[in-house]
Amino acid sequence: MSNTFGSFLKVTTFGESHGGAVGAVIDGFPPQIPLSEEMIQVQLDRRRPGQNSISTPRNESDTVKIISGVENGITLGTPITLVVENRDKRPGDYCAETKVPRPSHADYTYLMKYGVKASSGGGRASARETVGRVAAGAAAEIFLRDRFGVEIVGFVSSVGNISAQISDMSYITRSIVDENPVRCPDSHIAELMEALIHEVKEEGDSIGGIVTCVCKNVPAGWGEPVFYKLEAALGAAMLSIPAVKGFEIGSGFEGAAMRGSEHNDLFVKKNHGDKAILGTLTNRSGGVLGGISNGEPICFRTAFKPAATISKEQITADYQGNETVLKSTGRHDPCVVHRAVPVVESMTALVLADTALMQMARRG
Amino acid sequence: MSNTFGSFLKVTTFGESHGGAVGAVIDGFPPQIPLSEEMIQVQLDRRRPGQNSISTPRNESDTVKIISGVENGITLGTPITLVVENRDKRPGDYCAETKVPRPSHADYTYLMKYGVKASSGGGRASARETVGRVAAGAAAEIFLRDRFGVEIVGFVSSVGNISAQISDMSYITRSIVDENPVRCPDSHIAELMEALIHEVKEEGDSIGGIVTCVCKNVPAGWGEPVFYKLEAALGAAMLSIPAVKGFEIGSGFEGAAMRGSEHNDLFVKKNHGDKAILGTLTNRSGGVLGGISNGEPICFRTAFKPAATISKEQITADYQGNETVLKSTGRHDPCVVHRAVPVVESMTALVLADTALMQMARRG
Amino acid sequence: MSNTFGSFLKVTTFGESHGGAVGAVIDGFPPQIPLSEEMIQVQLDRRRPGQNSISTPRNESDTVKIISGVENGITLGTPITLVVENRDKRPGDYCAETKVPRPSHADYTYLMKYGVKASSGGGRASARETVGRVAAGAAAEIFLRDRFGVEIVGFVSSVGNISAQISDMSYITRSIVDENPVRCPDSHIAELMEALIHEVKEEGDSIGGIVTCVCKNVPAGWGEPVFYKLEAALGAAMLSIPAVKGFEIGSGFEGAAMRGSEHNDLFVKKNHGDKAILGTLTNRSGGVLGGISNGEPICFRTAFKPAATISKEQITADYQGNETVLKSTGRHDPCVVHRAVPVVESMTALVLADTALMQMARRG
Amino acid sequence: MSNTFGSFLKVTTFGESHGGAVGAVIDGFPPQIPLSEEMIQVQLDRRRPGQNSISTPRNESDTVKIISGVENGITLGTPITLVVENRDKRPGDYCAETKVPRPSHADYTYLMKYGVKASSGGGRASARETVGRVAAGAAAEIFLRDRFGVEIVGFVSSVGNISAQISDMSYITRSIVDENPVRCPDSHIAELMEALIHEVKEEGDSIGGIVTCVCKNVPAGWGEPVFYKLEAALGAAMLSIPAVKGFEIGSGFEGAAMRGSEHNDLFVKKNHGDKAILGTLTNRSGGVLGGISNGEPICFRTAFKPAATISKEQITADYQGNETVLKSTGRHDPCVVHRAVPVVESMTALVLADTALMQMARRG
Repeated sequence: MSNTFGSFLKVTTFGESHGGAVGAVIDGFPPQIPLSEEMIQVQLDRRRPGQNSISTPRNESDTVKIISGVENGITLGTPITLVVENRDKRPGDYCAETKVPRPSHADYTYLMKYGVKASSGGGRASARETVGRVAAGAAAEIFLRDRFGVEIVGFVSSVGNISAQISDMSYITRSIVDENPVRCPDSHIAELMEALIHEVKEEGDSIGGIVTCVCKNVPAGWGEPVFYKLEAALGAAMLSIPAVKGFEIGSGFEGAAMRGSEHNDLFVKKNHGDKAILGTLTNRSGGVLGGISNGEPICFRTAFKPAATISKEQITADYQGNETVLKSTGRHDPCVVHRAVPVVESMTALVLADTALMQMARRG
Repeated sequence: MSNTFGSFLKVTTFGESHGGAVGAVIDGFPPQIPLSEEMIQVQLDRRRPGQNSISTPRNESDTVKIISGVENGITLGTPITLVVENRDKRPGDYCAETKVPRPSHADYTYLMKYGVKASSGGGRASARETVGRVAAGAAAEIFLRDRFGVEIVGFVSSVGNISAQISDMSYITRSIVDENPVRCPDSHIAELMEALIHEVKEEGDSIGGIVTCVCKNVPAGWGEPVFYKLEAALGAAMLSIPAVKGFEIGSGFEGAAMRGSEHNDLFVKKNHGDKAILGTLTNRSGGVLGGISNGEPICFRTAFKPAATISKEQITADYQGNETVLKSTGRHDPCVVHRAVPVVESMTALVLADTALMQMARRG
Repeated sequence: MSNTFGSFLKVTTFGESHGGAVGAVIDGFPPQIPLSEEMIQVQLDRRRPGQNSISTPRNESDTVKIISGVENGITLGTPITLVVENRDKRPGDYCAETKVPRPSHADYTYLMKYGVKASSGGGRASARETVGRVAAGAAAEIFLRDRFGVEIVGFVSSVGNISAQISDMSYITRSIVDENPVRCPDSHIAELMEALIHEVKEEGDSIGGIVTCVCKNVPAGWGEPVFYKLEAALGAAMLSIPAVKGFEIGSGFEGAAMRGSEHNDLFVKKNHGDKAILGTLTNRSGGVLGGISNGEPICFRTAFKPAATISKEQITADYQGNETVLKSTGRHDPCVVHRAVPVVESMTALVLADTALMQMARRG
Repeated sequence: MSNTFGSFLKVTTFGESHGGAVGAVIDGFPPQIPLSEEMIQVQLDRRRPGQNSISTPRNESDTVKIISGVENGITLGTPITLVVENRDKRPGDYCAETKVPRPSHADYTYLMKYGVKASSGGGRASARETVGRVAAGAAAEIFLRDRFGVEIVGFVSSVGNISAQISDMSYITRSIVDENPVRCPDSHIAELMEALIHEVKEEGDSIGGIVTCVCKNVPAGWGEPVFYKLEAALGAAMLSIPAVKGFEIGSGFEGAAMRGSEHNDLFVKKNHGDKAILGTLTNRSGGVLGGISNGEPICFRTAFKPAATISKEQITADYQGNETVLKSTGRHDPCVVHRAVPVVESMTALVLADTALMQMARRG
């Protein structure tokens, strides 16, 4: 009952990993915004499998079609329907698994919830569902950039226990992020990460990681107290992405160890174009105060567990509880975080666009 | 536009810290559940200020009144209105602050959002708003216990850089948690935490911390794919609490450093009463797979920044951007995490009750 | 699960007829709008019982208190809580009815729905619940007038089979409507209606009627396709008022008997201040095309059944199905439509304000 | 922002009349319900144009494809996506109309709302949007029949000023309704209606009408006080259908002229299978008391204005306000009510299924 995201900008995703198509319907998208399939395709290409040696060899072209809501390259204000056909279906790959719930997958819980489950693959729990999110989020980003100049950039900051320390995020752009396949803007660390991913792949194993995201030029005033605080909305958005186990904004868990006198962000006059505005000397708040954007960059981190599908043998139980050995033969990713970057950016865009519309409603 | 929480069990909180009253309206609460003011009062007493030497000396009795939805000690199915009068108002305490936005408070962002702000205190951004949440959550807990035997226990696991390592959470109950004022079930660590809080208080400073929460007896099948996954709903609930900067479930951020082969929770037959069910050997998932409860305990951690109000002088700027020295004289908490425990529990109860109703709707 | 009305401007009403208080929480009300208890009281006074000889003798002063969301006479953007205490409770009046479901009341269906019901009066099904709606709607009206100059005027157009034919509604104001107790702007017809109500009252019976409502100065563009069309939202609002059995907009049921060539509203240039705009020669559409306001007055009619509570004996069945004679002794209204006028206006205001915010969100 | 209908069973329709496809995504549909394309196709065939001589000659086969949410003929609990391709597009037919807003169509209001409009046809305001509703509603009906035995039957009760008086609706089934092309169960009146429609068609005109709907076997207890009363939800559903101008339930507008003593439905013991239950002697309430179903048949009427598209010349204004003569050449229906029957039934099914889920959530 919750395949729709957002209150004002509402996105409903649909489709299963092994059905005919996946996609999204966007309701509430503002009219008169330039939008084309090409503009959306860019982010889908960054998400798609088979991009390079560290991704799954499944090769899905993931070509988006806009089938409603846009005419002559301009949004009409009516629902935008985005459809991506599933081309590279190989249900046979997954057959062996139907008698054994895959460890740390959703097979068991879907069955407990619905009393029935899709015969192959992860159904709606598959990461393929995120195609619809990325397509919709790419459209939301265009609105945010067009109207407010908002820039959203995600990047990989950790793979396993290899972490990049990025002290200054102001210079990071998507093209810098895309300079290496891992999508870590520190090229030296990126090489180490890539080597680790290859090592893990050789072992038939998988590895987790962290995606950091920064949003620039978000005006002060977005985010809705009390229950739709910006951090709550962003947290829910990130934690709804498959494999995510943690979210922190600004100082995050480190902030819990600090004193108020070292944590508080002191106010100071700043120049914004030719206008003086209030800013903060530090940004431990991560751009959000009381759930509302304060004009500073919004920074947060999202933790991804290692992908649950591995080729290594696992001693687990079948649905009847009998011990069994599971060895997955389907194609899979040794590490998903570099492909998760556009998913994080897209979910961020959906949250920001939703709160933008709410604030537009209020102030007119 | 977001003072209501939940989709099926909907809670609307109202009131400002220095207005006449705070409270909540609960819509969708199931009928025929025994409910009384006394049952709710227990959790409000655990939240209220002035409980002990490590809390603010503000002494609010916070007595709840049920003014609709319950008759003869039984819920009617109609909206339950819970009201707590504000007794200990001292608006004068806060006057000096009206010209200077308090660092890391919401004064500035409320003004940017609404173009106007409450003259004193934090308005809706004040932690006093959580009175309504605790009252409503206490009621939700009663429903969960009554119908499903669910137990929710929160406790303080870190204050500053003092952390308790609790490997076995199965024995922890609320009465164990309440044995010391810090609400940390490791009594030795609790003493160290208490000492730190006193030290910080002496300095006119504040300190952050972490609340861990465990939910037992949650049946498999709760939580709604795709966007209302249990972890997303819990994360949003926690991140909507004032001062929260991070949330992690199960392995959390540590999981991001692990390999799939060490992270996956292998299935095994378990005895549940006289019935054999599937369980997992480990619980790195934190009781949730694909957004749906799997029958194992649900475990998560919530990071609180240090309270922004401190007595120490801060060099900051007024609304015009002029440098100024701010020294807060209002009463405040050096550490909020022990008082946050019932808030965490209550928001957890609201999430679980909401997902319980959703699942009841589906399976009948 | 549906005590909240609206999507952007959300109103939650609470309270039972014989509990401590009734009221409403308004979420999403725009900031910086002048609002006072006096401004809201005006409409509550028009709704309250005991106004005159054709209303119930119950004399409730229905004094509203604003307990949050307004400071210094200005809205803060935070939830506005409006509370009206129940003063004139006489539960004893209703005792006899607890064993017999009152015909055409909700006693039986509440019991079937919830498995339990309030011991006296109608609980949430009582028309007393509309106090919260009127208070909230009065506030919404002030926003609509302040920002857009919208005027909403309701009046009684039928009582029983006595109907007023009002061909020109442009001159009708609230003060004209209030010139007689029936609230029918045709004073001659109003006298006949008043006489009929007295006759019905003498008989211990009740009588139905129709309220017409006209909204002026609604800008073109409000109302949301596809499912929140203005007529759908207004219809739902009216049909949620106790005792309403029908709703029609513009030509309504008469329109179903017409041909397209006589029904279509032809466009024509009109002067609007110093600007030429498109208007229509006729207004069979009732100010709405495709669910969106077209700039013409919005006109609709709401049918109220006769109040179900009558003093006449009724041969009916008790909860066990045994035939019984019911004779109500509680105080009641022989006709409710004149008191329903502010309820209709208030629900209209809630719909229009909600759609106004939606359109503001879209166009910025 | 309102292309989604329902709270628990949520239906999002998408597509424009002249885009690639129309359809719907159903979220919250219960799992384990048998569902196939054939079962849905039946209602689409009853809605489609070109069925017979009284419909538009546009011949769209309207073949539905289920692209997600169903496997092996059983629903999975995940979103069901239903797609119908648009085959018979002739945008050229509508070109002349782009400079002139068609009278009583939504061209003008869409432009005022969005600042842009689809170049041809009615876009989302076109009745073609109802394809998605019928497909989704057909699925909802199958759930209602499968779990509760609910039967929903709509029929034409008026065309222009020819009306059928149907005193006993208990015998009416869909096959009886479909015995004649007008879908009026009184075959004699149906012939008169058919003749009138042919006459109107000859004149290049259109004619309005009324659809009556009856729902049998709805259990007592469905419908949510206060704002989602069954009559409010049904009213909103009906008034969201293109061309609808009025809705009444039970006694409706006639009830407004009655006295309480003649209107009240007296309770009486009734046999329901081998169980005695409370029923009512009469059914002026239309099966609903206080917004909740009472176990009696739910009966309501929906008024459709004459279709706005006519071939007759109309003297109207272009977008600049200049007088112009409009003569429509596109294919159109002289009367839509017989094709509206499955639309009314489908929207009814969506409302009933939504309230069924709500009640299942409450009582478990």
